[in-house]
Amino acid sequence: MKQFSSDDIDNYIKLLDFSKIEGGLIPVITQDSETNEILILAFANKEAVRKTMETGYVHFFSRSRNKIWKKGESSGYLEEVLDIITDCDKDSLLIIVKQIGAACHKGYYSCFFNKLEDGKFKDIGTKIFDPKDVYK
Amino acid sequence: MKQFSSDDIDNYIKLLDFSKIEGGLIPVITQDSETNEILILAFANKEAVRKTMETGYVHFFSRSRNKIWKKGESSGYLEEVLDIITDCDKDSLLIIVKQIGAACHKGYYSCFFNKLEDGKFKDIGTKIFDPKDVYK
Repeated sequence: MKQFSSDDIDNYIKLLDFSKIEGGLIPVITQDSETNEILILAFANKEAVRKTMETGYVHFFSRSRNKIWKKGESSGYLEEVLDIITDCDKDSLLIIVKQIGAACHKGYYSCFFNKLEDGKFKDIGTKIFDPKDVYK
Repeated sequence: MKQFSSDDIDNYIKLLDFSKIEGGLIPVITQDSETNEILILAFANKEAVRKTMETGYVHFFSRSRNKIWKKGESSGYLEEVLDIITDCDKDSLLIIVKQIGAACHKGYYSCFFNKLEDGKFKDIGTKIFDPKDVYK
């Protein structure tokens, strides 16, 4: 797991562009270090990026609940930070992670499980757990 | 390359959630079908998603230029659509593509080339072209 010093965090946060999405957010993709699968796309504000870098666990900002959200805080299915990469415009993050359990609250390993095929969504996901057993 | 019928496009667009980002946008990730690299994250409105599905080439919506943007229209470095996948909330798209040339306007194969390391950005990108030769 990778953690960053407060000086480094301050530096990085100054270099990132949080101005493009209402509420000072940037999109964050997490990618599985072993399979290269995309696990989730969610949004982070400065505080969520700071928490991610300080703790070594992915944090997002939930717009619906208006709060910082540690990914996997209810299920225990955390994402450990291995590397953080930003793009040419420095307005989005790609976090390479070790996924504990599964990323999707519906029990799939990745949130991206609906393939567009023959006019409908085809479920291509790998089911890892039953949400009824995990969220009580 | 994958193209979709107008009936299928109408169906999918109705099922996607464009309400969460100002301007009716959803984030779109493109991923290389061969290397599994993340190439770019940008935004699409309904019209850009429609154009992507109709033509088989990735289109985005440029907020700075306020117009639909065919990825690679100036450079010729297009992205051919192979598959489109949406997530559990149906508010973001992952497009599996065949990348022609390189994805980044700075000449890198992927836009994600700035790794956060030792308090600064470390360039981990693969340079494919010199922007001076391509954008005249």
